[in-house]
Amino acid sequence: MIHTGNDGISRSIDLNCDFGEGYGAYTFGQDETLLNYVTSVNIACGFHAGDPHTIREAVSRAVQAGVAVGAHPGLPDRLGFGRREIALSPSEVYEITLYQIGALDAFVRASGSKLKHVKPHGALYHMAGGQASIAEAFVQAVRAYDSQLKIYGQSGSLLLAEAQKQGLSKVSEVFADRAYIRGGQLAPRRSPGAVLSSPEAALQQTLYMLKHNKVRTLEGEEAAITAETVCLHGDGEHAGQFAAALRNGLAGAGIVLQPPS
Amino acid sequence: MIHTGNDGISRSIDLNCDFGEGYGAYTFGQDETLLNYVTSVNIACGFHAGDPHTIREAVSRAVQAGVAVGAHPGLPDRLGFGRREIALSPSEVYEITLYQIGALDAFVRASGSKLKHVKPHGALYHMAGGQASIAEAFVQAVRAYDSQLKIYGQSGSLLLAEAQKQGLSKVSEVFADRAYIRGGQLAPRRSPGAVLSSPEAALQQTLYMLKHNKVRTLEGEEAAITAETVCLHGDGEHAGQFAAALRNGLAGAGIVLQPPS
Amino acid sequence: MIHTGNDGISRSIDLNCDFGEGYGAYTFGQDETLLNYVTSVNIACGFHAGDPHTIREAVSRAVQAGVAVGAHPGLPDRLGFGRREIALSPSEVYEITLYQIGALDAFVRASGSKLKHVKPHGALYHMAGGQASIAEAFVQAVRAYDSQLKIYGQSGSLLLAEAQKQGLSKVSEVFADRAYIRGGQLAPRRSPGAVLSSPEAALQQTLYMLKHNKVRTLEGEEAAITAETVCLHGDGEHAGQFAAALRNGLAGAGIVLQPPS
Amino acid sequence: MIHTGNDGISRSIDLNCDFGEGYGAYTFGQDETLLNYVTSVNIACGFHAGDPHTIREAVSRAVQAGVAVGAHPGLPDRLGFGRREIALSPSEVYEITLYQIGALDAFVRASGSKLKHVKPHGALYHMAGGQASIAEAFVQAVRAYDSQLKIYGQSGSLLLAEAQKQGLSKVSEVFADRAYIRGGQLAPRRSPGAVLSSPEAALQQTLYMLKHNKVRTLEGEEAAITAETVCLHGDGEHAGQFAAALRNGLAGAGIVLQPPS
Repeated sequence: MIHTGNDGISRSIDLNCDFGEGYGAYTFGQDETLLNYVTSVNIACGFHAGDPHTIREAVSRAVQAGVAVGAHPGLPDRLGFGRREIALSPSEVYEITLYQIGALDAFVRASGSKLKHVKPHGALYHMAGGQASIAEAFVQAVRAYDSQLKIYGQSGSLLLAEAQKQGLSKVSEVFADRAYIRGGQLAPRRSPGAVLSSPEAALQQTLYMLKHNKVRTLEGEEAAITAETVCLHGDGEHAGQFAAALRNGLAGAGIVLQPPS
Repeated sequence: MIHTGNDGISRSIDLNCDFGEGYGAYTFGQDETLLNYVTSVNIACGFHAGDPHTIREAVSRAVQAGVAVGAHPGLPDRLGFGRREIALSPSEVYEITLYQIGALDAFVRASGSKLKHVKPHGALYHMAGGQASIAEAFVQAVRAYDSQLKIYGQSGSLLLAEAQKQGLSKVSEVFADRAYIRGGQLAPRRSPGAVLSSPEAALQQTLYMLKHNKVRTLEGEEAAITAETVCLHGDGEHAGQFAAALRNGLAGAGIVLQPPS
Repeated sequence: MIHTGNDGISRSIDLNCDFGEGYGAYTFGQDETLLNYVTSVNIACGFHAGDPHTIREAVSRAVQAGVAVGAHPGLPDRLGFGRREIALSPSEVYEITLYQIGALDAFVRASGSKLKHVKPHGALYHMAGGQASIAEAFVQAVRAYDSQLKIYGQSGSLLLAEAQKQGLSKVSEVFADRAYIRGGQLAPRRSPGAVLSSPEAALQQTLYMLKHNKVRTLEGEEAAITAETVCLHGDGEHAGQFAAALRNGLAGAGIVLQPPS
Repeated sequence: MIHTGNDGISRSIDLNCDFGEGYGAYTFGQDETLLNYVTSVNIACGFHAGDPHTIREAVSRAVQAGVAVGAHPGLPDRLGFGRREIALSPSEVYEITLYQIGALDAFVRASGSKLKHVKPHGALYHMAGGQASIAEAFVQAVRAYDSQLKIYGQSGSLLLAEAQKQGLSKVSEVFADRAYIRGGQLAPRRSPGAVLSSPEAALQQTLYMLKHNKVRTLEGEEAAITAETVCLHGDGEHAGQFAAALRNGLAGAGIVLQPPS
């Protein structure tokens, strides 16, 4: 259930992070730290990151922590960490998505828990967010597996529109620490002001989104946005402090932190 | 239901083959030919062979043909086609097995069908057949996923004993075209007489197994054996003719060809 | 030495084919057949296809046959056979190219022979042919390894221009069995008339190129082209017959078949 | 040149470490720290760890630091970091070794430097150290590539015997921080007392080896050992302090630290 005030404004939000992105002997990010602050995790499925052992551990920790568990399928490019676009056909996107969801879910089922959502990773997130045929194939794969699964996607993306079209629940994602530009797009990461390094600024941006369903862009305009989940990042030295500040600030403002209902 | 005559001897048998063992642009074996003769298939899951597209095609063909669909997990060694032993721990075996079953089953579920069995591939087949801790881990993975799944393993192997111990259905596999030695082991493939190249001899060996629950070994003795499924091979020029001869010969002898019930 | 007639027209040409594109238990193409007809081969280096054993066998056969041996680096995408574009940076292209050349050359050196050329594969061929920064990185990698290596690229491509700019020998490749369009580009493979299925038509197109340094396009115009090597394909049922017809036809017309000098 | 005192005892030693064992977005070990203390590095070649970009960076840093650069080929098992034994044939060992040396050397050549040695990694180190046919194949690969390359192997191993037999220079490796048992073998890592956690104890063990060409075993006996290079480890929190203490201690005792001559 989404908590909504008299003013029709959402009083709850989900905090998600990517999870289990190590591989074999390699670790990645700060899973244990972030797990203290998020309400849902997206677990790598073995293509851009993750492997059977890493998945087992990640699922086990997430289930123990009581957060919502989602699948985080990526492009078949471990070397590039799924961040490099590959010219896949829609059919190929359907196939790699279905494969990864099934593989991840096997561990969720074995743990006695239940898979709740799917969020594409990296280049696949952007491809599914911006290309209609890729969005369609991605949602078809999720639906073919389990039509109760929610789809996480960027606010305003084609992916969320496609999820709705196919009758799946969608969860609109925003970034607390990234600046937005005209049309509600993210400012390119390397452009000036693209990253909000102050936790306070990130908190204010998020509260503004929740209150107004809008975001102030770098151009000084407003763009429509829907904040149902916030993506927290595990890289960066201060990832834990940032997550704590955001969580505490939201809670202090009376926002309920919980997975999408 | 197993057809059993008044004499207590099985009157039915399953014919299985490995299936979907191509990779990307590569094809392997004679899937289309063998599909005419088998009653169940073991589909590669993407580790020793197979990939999301190949799996999708293989599942689709198998479901259309009406044969029983099983998962065929292998070692993480595509270069070696899963035939080279790797010193995996039992935990690692559990994890790679669970991962592969889930990945394969996603396509089976998406096709509206139901996964029926699991058979380990290549070196994993031998490791799970001969090492108790590996057998235990393999069966645990299958059971953790779905305790209704049957486990295919070599007649007399530790894998079948372990399946029974953990309460899963086991299906005892024999080889029509391979000679047996003392104790019911297979004669090493490169030893003299190890391969029965005549379809007639293979048929006679299979019928003998069905009738007597024994096999004549190369030493001229008899060894106990249980023939619930026969493995057909897709490599070799005459694989199709061999499969046809065996199937027709069994049917002509009044044996019902069907998946394990 | 290039044989050139009184008319300034080339009287010699190289016939090349991709080679050693199997992987592990998988075979690909018709290496043994084509080896009878070509004067140079491009051997897969383990990224899009090939592996250490396959490379060793391919180098050994090529050296025994006396053809010129080249490296055939591809994108790191075995699943896609190097045919899917990946958004690599120029640095990454430099690195994967250098790695693959070194790996392949180890086997050439061990065989007592000498690597002669490098030809990019699939999507990398097109990326290096059409994107200046990729062409530059590719040529830098070849030059960093051995500035005596020749670079094979499509006639008119940026890759050949870049090779020349960096002082490397370039070899201009044409396709006997593919139709050309305005500007000397290849007609898209699936467009009508894109493939010349008749060996006779392919021979005539090649002879016309050699004689006129031009090709007749599908639009009925002429486009400048330089035919120093012809690419023969190993896929397709009639690849061998096609190669034989082309080779015999060229020889019958007095063209000397030999690797670039 | 090896510095040898009047007593015939070596007065110089090499300190080596594994290097460049990251992969894509993943880092591993403490390359930058250890580079301050070693005189030679063994760079991963892309099979158990490393990739073209990681190799390029590692070679560049090692060359700038002026240490001797070696290849560190491993088993084709990135998931297992090359630590799990795989039942490879000697031919396969030859092939994967040759491939990896060539790939690594391409970057060394491009950097204007020269490859000096080869040291097998992980399970391959143990296989080549203990199985004669694997040792033979490994040395053949090194020799086929460049017979001037030195082979690093464990003191007393079959690998060093085989190197000598085939006429290659061998470098006998010891472990400063590992206890030895009867016959000069390493005590299994998990057995009591197997690891010398005190830098002082490690220094004393190393000096004893250099002075006496013997090591005191856990059983209280002595075993013959030849200390030409010491392996430093990059994992563990205190790897840098340990390396510093060992290096300074050796230098303080008048031992010259330099790569094998």
